[in-house]
Amino acid sequence: MPPFPRDEVEAIYRRIQRSIRPAGVAGLGAEDLSGSFGDLYQACLAVLAPCGQVELNTAIANKEYFAFERDGRISRAVNNDLHAADVSGGWAEFVHALHSKNFGALTAEDVTRTLYSVAISFCAVIDLTRRGDQKTPGTFFEWLVGHLFAVQLGVVPTTRLPVLNLDMETTLPTDFTFDLGPGRPKFHLPVKTSTRERVIQVWAHQRVLDGVYGTGRFIGTPVILAETKTDRQTRDVVEICLPEQWRIYQMHIAQLRRVYYPDPPEAYIRLNEVFPPVHVRPFGDFFHEFDELVA
Amino acid sequence: MPPFPRDEVEAIYRRIQRSIRPAGVAGLGAEDLSGSFGDLYQACLAVLAPCGQVELNTAIANKEYFAFERDGRISRAVNNDLHAADVSGGWAEFVHALHSKNFGALTAEDVTRTLYSVAISFCAVIDLTRRGDQKTPGTFFEWLVGHLFAVQLGVVPTTRLPVLNLDMETTLPTDFTFDLGPGRPKFHLPVKTSTRERVIQVWAHQRVLDGVYGTGRFIGTPVILAETKTDRQTRDVVEICLPEQWRIYQMHIAQLRRVYYPDPPEAYIRLNEVFPPVHVRPFGDFFHEFDELVA
Repeated sequence: MPPFPRDEVEAIYRRIQRSIRPAGVAGLGAEDLSGSFGDLYQACLAVLAPCGQVELNTAIANKEYFAFERDGRISRAVNNDLHAADVSGGWAEFVHALHSKNFGALTAEDVTRTLYSVAISFCAVIDLTRRGDQKTPGTFFEWLVGHLFAVQLGVVPTTRLPVLNLDMETTLPTDFTFDLGPGRPKFHLPVKTSTRERVIQVWAHQRVLDGVYGTGRFIGTPVILAETKTDRQTRDVVEICLPEQWRIYQMHIAQLRRVYYPDPPEAYIRLNEVFPPVHVRPFGDFFHEFDELVA
Repeated sequence: MPPFPRDEVEAIYRRIQRSIRPAGVAGLGAEDLSGSFGDLYQACLAVLAPCGQVELNTAIANKEYFAFERDGRISRAVNNDLHAADVSGGWAEFVHALHSKNFGALTAEDVTRTLYSVAISFCAVIDLTRRGDQKTPGTFFEWLVGHLFAVQLGVVPTTRLPVLNLDMETTLPTDFTFDLGPGRPKFHLPVKTSTRERVIQVWAHQRVLDGVYGTGRFIGTPVILAETKTDRQTRDVVEICLPEQWRIYQMHIAQLRRVYYPDPPEAYIRLNEVFPPVHVRPFGDFFHEFDELVA
């Protein structure tokens, strides 16, 4: 077998990093990043193409998962229907729609599938090449989602907000926030590859923003890649979900406007149908319902 | 050099584990656990006695730290003044006071020093023997503090509470909570070896308890070992503290009644003196001010 061809993935990742770093997270607004993420996606697909695919078992309704395999290691679970390895052209179409602010030619499902595929491909490459590295996929996914929001919203994010509260004068570190300007909403964008019991932080940060700046000023729209967990022995995939706790957090801590997932967990999608609902949506919906969110 | 004599530490740790497990966290109420923790403390001191001690550098006012050293590895930072390696008899006196509910013969400073010493000794042994193991010290410290609260309060903890809220019927997983009975306060006891940016979870959980059961019903008293961080190259010790964020959390998320530390960070102790204060105290104070807390 030829040596594992991951060098190009690393090189493009470093190029994205060098392009963002000088400006801090404001660097996520650079238009040409869209092209770099496309290059990275292509390089990841090229790395994964010769890898084996192992079917995984799951009891989740309407979902099938597999894992990439190379040299006896397997990647995280990849959703069969959402991963479109043969349609990497989907990224070019998505970028065209994003930059021209016209999603008329793409369905929300197309967008969700493309973004899932871009994200999971990179994560799978890292899973196969760097044992135990959870940080690089997390950083990559933050950059990707931060960039997409920056282009869609037309403003760059920040991760620090001033607090002027009577005799208190300090700054508050935050997840990505985007300020659309006076009299318009601001976005609060936590980005995670999965949440599990740490998710309470997302609601707590929303509560702090509501408390410090006023309820309703920040639209909370966390984006989470997936909640799958694979047992490497049995090859069973489950989704680790805490839907009853999410309802309690939404009632008692703060209100998140949406929770977006490229691969939405079954148990959370059902939260759209209880009262009061938690609005959990496929990530592609964001680009189609954006006008409604900021109205 | 003789082989590292950690076997007895492991054996006593397993004995404690076996004694707690069958009853879940309710097992933390067993009276004879106090003796087992004392045995473990003695065994840890015996392991540490022949180890080297490396002076660490720190700019923190009124604090000096060292680390235990063995085979080229160093432990986490140990506070010189608080670690009383030669007064392990302090544990017997403390246990006598705890079980007889009479702390008249011990100052709060004595108690803080003893409890710091018991906790840090075990953590240091694990640091020297199991690379990267953060979980065992965390579990041990939870057991230790959970046991002390269980004896002091005279009730066993639980980590799951029923929620009956109109059409919602579920259970809420929590940190340790202690129910003193109808018409009396309940305690909410998160236990951590350090918190850093994860600390917002503690306030968020307090908010959920306030929201679901009513503000004031649960007295929030997290216990945190220390906030030190040691640079292994330069051997500098710093305390990672976010005092301005703590003030914002206390104003905007929920009210914690106390935050107890065996080794209270300088920056947090100063929060006692601002208005509105956050009440950060040496852990030994808990046993002396207990009557006031439940009044």
